[in-house]
Amino acid sequence: MLTRRHLLATCAAAMASPSLTQAAAPASGKQAAAYYRYKVGAYELTAIHDGVWMREIDDKLVRNIGWNAVAFAMRDAHMKPSILPTPFTPVVVNTGSKLVLIDTGTGGQFPAPSGSFLANLAAAGIDPKAIDAILISHFHADHINGIRDKDGGMVFPRAEIHVPAPEWAYWMDDSNMMKAPESARPAWLNVRRIFKDIAGKVNRFNDGKELAPGITAMFTPGHTPGHSSFLIASANQSALVLGDVTNNPYLFLQNPDWQGVFDVDGPLAVATRRKVFDRAASDRTLVQGYHFPFPAVGYVNTAGKGYELVPAMWQPTL
Amino acid sequence: MLTRRHLLATCAAAMASPSLTQAAAPASGKQAAAYYRYKVGAYELTAIHDGVWMREIDDKLVRNIGWNAVAFAMRDAHMKPSILPTPFTPVVVNTGSKLVLIDTGTGGQFPAPSGSFLANLAAAGIDPKAIDAILISHFHADHINGIRDKDGGMVFPRAEIHVPAPEWAYWMDDSNMMKAPESARPAWLNVRRIFKDIAGKVNRFNDGKELAPGITAMFTPGHTPGHSSFLIASANQSALVLGDVTNNPYLFLQNPDWQGVFDVDGPLAVATRRKVFDRAASDRTLVQGYHFPFPAVGYVNTAGKGYELVPAMWQPTL
Repeated sequence: MLTRRHLLATCAAAMASPSLTQAAAPASGKQAAAYYRYKVGAYELTAIHDGVWMREIDDKLVRNIGWNAVAFAMRDAHMKPSILPTPFTPVVVNTGSKLVLIDTGTGGQFPAPSGSFLANLAAAGIDPKAIDAILISHFHADHINGIRDKDGGMVFPRAEIHVPAPEWAYWMDDSNMMKAPESARPAWLNVRRIFKDIAGKVNRFNDGKELAPGITAMFTPGHTPGHSSFLIASANQSALVLGDVTNNPYLFLQNPDWQGVFDVDGPLAVATRRKVFDRAASDRTLVQGYHFPFPAVGYVNTAGKGYELVPAMWQPTL
Repeated sequence: MLTRRHLLATCAAAMASPSLTQAAAPASGKQAAAYYRYKVGAYELTAIHDGVWMREIDDKLVRNIGWNAVAFAMRDAHMKPSILPTPFTPVVVNTGSKLVLIDTGTGGQFPAPSGSFLANLAAAGIDPKAIDAILISHFHADHINGIRDKDGGMVFPRAEIHVPAPEWAYWMDDSNMMKAPESARPAWLNVRRIFKDIAGKVNRFNDGKELAPGITAMFTPGHTPGHSSFLIASANQSALVLGDVTNNPYLFLQNPDWQGVFDVDGPLAVATRRKVFDRAASDRTLVQGYHFPFPAVGYVNTAGKGYELVPAMWQPTL
């Protein structure tokens, strides 16, 4: 049985007998490609991992709750208290007529080990030039930076770009930028870097707009003023691509009332979160969450004062 | 916001506008290769998925609890009530001097979509001929069948095979076979098919035996009489490869007292399970579970009357 004696004996043996023989196979050092496919009706969805940002945080992570509660939740989730591991998972939807990318990742412009989107897209057999349309949930850098490479080149040259109209209005208004605290200024300048010389080509959509066959915008404001999710429906099946309705599920899904520092309007983000997840739990809707652990797809149950994520079991076939 | 109006409008639009244009990219139809690498100290572990057996079950799945409770738990886990999706995930440990395979999968001898072990092993860059040693947790077919191909050939020709001594004693005793119910007979014959002409080459180990540098047998009986887990220790880190100490975590980890029909000795399996997971939760030990959803690695917390699995977050680098 599991005893400390076992562990100590094993460690002692490992230290006492350094191996002098050649390994039968050298250590690989390489991780598997990280993409995951599933069907929603006749549509084929591919979740593409853009790696994980080891985001340094402090005791201000949640605005409306004491740090002790957050630190306990992070410990229960087996995280370190000073780092919020933040994965990114854009999704490609193949409708049969259109190849639609929802959010674009970090564009390799966040610290490693993030930035694996294009390598994983290639592993999935998808050429950036084949993307017909890009749908953007909101204008935070980890969602829009992938539109361009580090030198400003367009990564998806054929793609129409669709953005929420109120998100455009909020971020592109210079008076809003001027009102923002100095520390937030880089985010506003980044939005201009991405969109400044393509403004005429960017389609600004409103709530309920069908952006591609079976893919409909569903505004979910709070995280940002114009934040949008996307409802995908095909052949009596559906899935909801959440964007940032919630962040890490162990923190902000289990505790939906917590207002993270990344939510522009904390109370509205909470109200939206509860509305979306009450319905998703009731309808047993498949959800894809941008900051959920890869492959970031699953179901939501009500649990305690909030919700819990039930990750979809990895299937070997579609 | 998420409304039925949205869903209905989306479905109606999808049905009204069948796409006549060519898809920019054809549907792939193919899933990603399923292996996952992580480090335990200096050791490199690779979890290799052998797919999922869609096991048909009935209301006798759990011996000591009413079916209603089981059906509710399956619904909460977003399973159908008649199918227990049963994934298999053997693990390769590269110690630096030895390439050690723990359990061998189904050998392609279970219904699809199981049987992807060798394809995923190849995707991970591991040649079956490079495996130095095989450690077997117990003699159920989904753990030993991979030792041989369908025609009886040895899949890992260089590998020493290590099995728990009491497991060998139990299954190879013909009087035990004769006492078993007729319906269990195929399992006993299968053990003989795998081991009959290699008996002299199979090493039978006892509890606490170090089988490779830093890899120690830890007997965890109940699921079968000689069931063994394996403790892996390197450079002050450790992980526990559980075998079948528990099956699906939403059923038998959240409800550790449930005695599944696949447990040979139900009460002993329960006692072992509580002992192992009380310690794993207390020590925050990384665990790898053979029937956990791929990649089947994570941590265990105490929760309610049992435990909950916190899957390790997929990392893009080792």
